[in-house]
Amino acid sequence: MDVGELMERSPFQRWLGVELTREGEGEVEVRLPYKDEFCGDDEGISIHGGVIASLADVASCFAAMSSVQEDLPTVDLRLDYLWRAAPGEDLIAVGRVTKAGGTIVYADVEVRTGSGRVVAVGRGTFLRAGPRP
Amino acid sequence: MDVGELMERSPFQRWLGVELTREGEGEVEVRLPYKDEFCGDDEGISIHGGVIASLADVASCFAAMSSVQEDLPTVDLRLDYLWRAAPGEDLIAVGRVTKAGGTIVYADVEVRTGSGRVVAVGRGTFLRAGPRP
Amino acid sequence: MDVGELMERSPFQRWLGVELTREGEGEVEVRLPYKDEFCGDDEGISIHGGVIASLADVASCFAAMSSVQEDLPTVDLRLDYLWRAAPGEDLIAVGRVTKAGGTIVYADVEVRTGSGRVVAVGRGTFLRAGPRP
Amino acid sequence: MDVGELMERSPFQRWLGVELTREGEGEVEVRLPYKDEFCGDDEGISIHGGVIASLADVASCFAAMSSVQEDLPTVDLRLDYLWRAAPGEDLIAVGRVTKAGGTIVYADVEVRTGSGRVVAVGRGTFLRAGPRP
Repeated sequence: MDVGELMERSPFQRWLGVELTREGEGEVEVRLPYKDEFCGDDEGISIHGGVIASLADVASCFAAMSSVQEDLPTVDLRLDYLWRAAPGEDLIAVGRVTKAGGTIVYADVEVRTGSGRVVAVGRGTFLRAGPRP
Repeated sequence: MDVGELMERSPFQRWLGVELTREGEGEVEVRLPYKDEFCGDDEGISIHGGVIASLADVASCFAAMSSVQEDLPTVDLRLDYLWRAAPGEDLIAVGRVTKAGGTIVYADVEVRTGSGRVVAVGRGTFLRAGPRP
Repeated sequence: MDVGELMERSPFQRWLGVELTREGEGEVEVRLPYKDEFCGDDEGISIHGGVIASLADVASCFAAMSSVQEDLPTVDLRLDYLWRAAPGEDLIAVGRVTKAGGTIVYADVEVRTGSGRVVAVGRGTFLRAGPRP
Repeated sequence: MDVGELMERSPFQRWLGVELTREGEGEVEVRLPYKDEFCGDDEGISIHGGVIASLADVASCFAAMSSVQEDLPTVDLRLDYLWRAAPGEDLIAVGRVTKAGGTIVYADVEVRTGSGRVVAVGRGTFLRAGPRP
């Protein structure tokens, strides 16, 4: 499974513009180049929480998929928004698998700005589709 | 505070195309007319989880803001994806405040398809910015 | 599967003193008679959050088990503490299945005091052990 | 604020038998010596999820309290159960503050067995009671 190619095969991910910048051993790094449509407000105060949630979903899900080499639906996703993400900067998300079980894969995600501030941390669970051992 | 007008004052919410269809007593209903960019995959199997998370964030946050008449940042958001949302249909999210405290507002959200299937349920907490009593 | 009998077959649940007061159609009600060891502080201000989490876990897990008639491990549990629960009163938790899938069962739980105040709401996911369809 | 002393001033924490084994810089380690009442089942298969949730609540909340030197109520708590915890071993939880904001403190927690297996990871948010800056 070519995870980078798979990331391209999604209209929403193409619209977001997510780029796989690193992959290996149940960990992926995804970059989201800034665009103005990501703003949550017309005053330019912060990037919308939905954009950050979308990026977190992509990074945690691709970390999970990378570890088991299967396409995986998200069971649940939880996000803590630590700081506002100011518009203008790219965002970088790192997803890491905590446990790749026979049925459930658990992954963590951290979203930071290009300048290194962690703006959100999250966790997701993902369901393996194939037959269980 | 005109909640419907506030929903328009956000580049990402305008891109999504969310529409406030009902508001009152700490409850709002938000409609998301379908567009192809929402797809999670090129095969047209399901709407991207990030789109559903974005809609859930908007509906729960606007329910919270509607109840206290203040702009509120999201502290955390949690989502359970119950069923795949098939592309083609509009999505409808209902946000409801569970508790509007002096500092934290708690809200629930349910996302369903136009034909009535609940595809996700979620919960968020939102932080009041003003001075606490 | 006799869910009430199963609730008794657990040292921790016996220590808590949880009682199944209602069961049916993916919904259970569990009562927790008050005892002083549940207090979170020596001043008698509130019941410990861990006691409420334990009760929430029991009620949501038994709702899930009741719906599929299988013993189910908890995948994850999330809890919002809405109000302090004052010592002295029994607590009542109602667990309700949101979706009983072939692999994952989702359940909601609400914890209230004997006098009807909702002190916490929660959600859990539970994993089916048997072969998937 | 003497965090170790504060841990003793709670009937439920005394019943659990939690011991503060390390504290400093928004991080605490809490040990839970094993007792038979912690079992989730009469067959001795695993420690009850409620016991693990209680320990996780204590460790994350004390990490938060340690960082801001205030008593803090829990806003919400989320837990992922990665592996069964076999009865017989002590449990160790490490709570770490992710962000100590003016109003909300975020903390992570990891629960492992004495032999080092991580059985659960969790996250909580805690509310500061004093006046905000």
